[in-house]
Amino acid sequence: MSIAKTGSTPYYAVIFTSIRTPGDDGYADMAQAMVEAASRQPGFLGVESAREEVGITVSYWDSLESIAAWKRDAAHLIAQQTGREKWYESYKTRICRVERDYDFSRM
Amino acid sequence: MSIAKTGSTPYYAVIFTSIRTPGDDGYADMAQAMVEAASRQPGFLGVESAREEVGITVSYWDSLESIAAWKRDAAHLIAQQTGREKWYESYKTRICRVERDYDFSRM
Repeated sequence: MSIAKTGSTPYYAVIFTSIRTPGDDGYADMAQAMVEAASRQPGFLGVESAREEVGITVSYWDSLESIAAWKRDAAHLIAQQTGREKWYESYKTRICRVERDYDFSRM
Repeated sequence: MSIAKTGSTPYYAVIFTSIRTPGDDGYADMAQAMVEAASRQPGFLGVESAREEVGITVSYWDSLESIAAWKRDAAHLIAQQTGREKWYESYKTRICRVERDYDFSRM
């Protein structure tokens, strides 16, 4: 996991913030599989993820159309349904247009 | 830390993704102080944060003007400078307009 190299603005971000139910119950395998599946989607630019009390996963995309196509992906639909049935206590998804970005590196 | 209650769209998000240098060196105290200071700013709507390999902090705001005012805040300017001098190996800041959101809760 590193900081996503997302190219020039504008582009789009999906901020997915979640609180997990206790136990793994297949969650880690699904999460890894979804990152790999998203990475193969047209228009995918990158992903960043971390979890402590809340989990935050931000995926980056070239367009709203690419985000909509990923939301309809068959394996992703099953993961979304299973998430509501057992993995998540609660979550919030935010669809954003990235207007500006800037970065810093010591190297 | 919980999922931020951000009200109706549109609103704005600042996604701050970072990789830390080793050691604390005052970082945890500063991070807590900055969350408290941001929370007192006009236009602040909420914040979510988690760190594993990367740290992701997303703060939510009512307008680009509120984000610009927070970027210029005196204590925040010192924290930004000290971050580049010692706390961060690298970071990326993305300024976003949140177009749509939706949520789920088991309760």
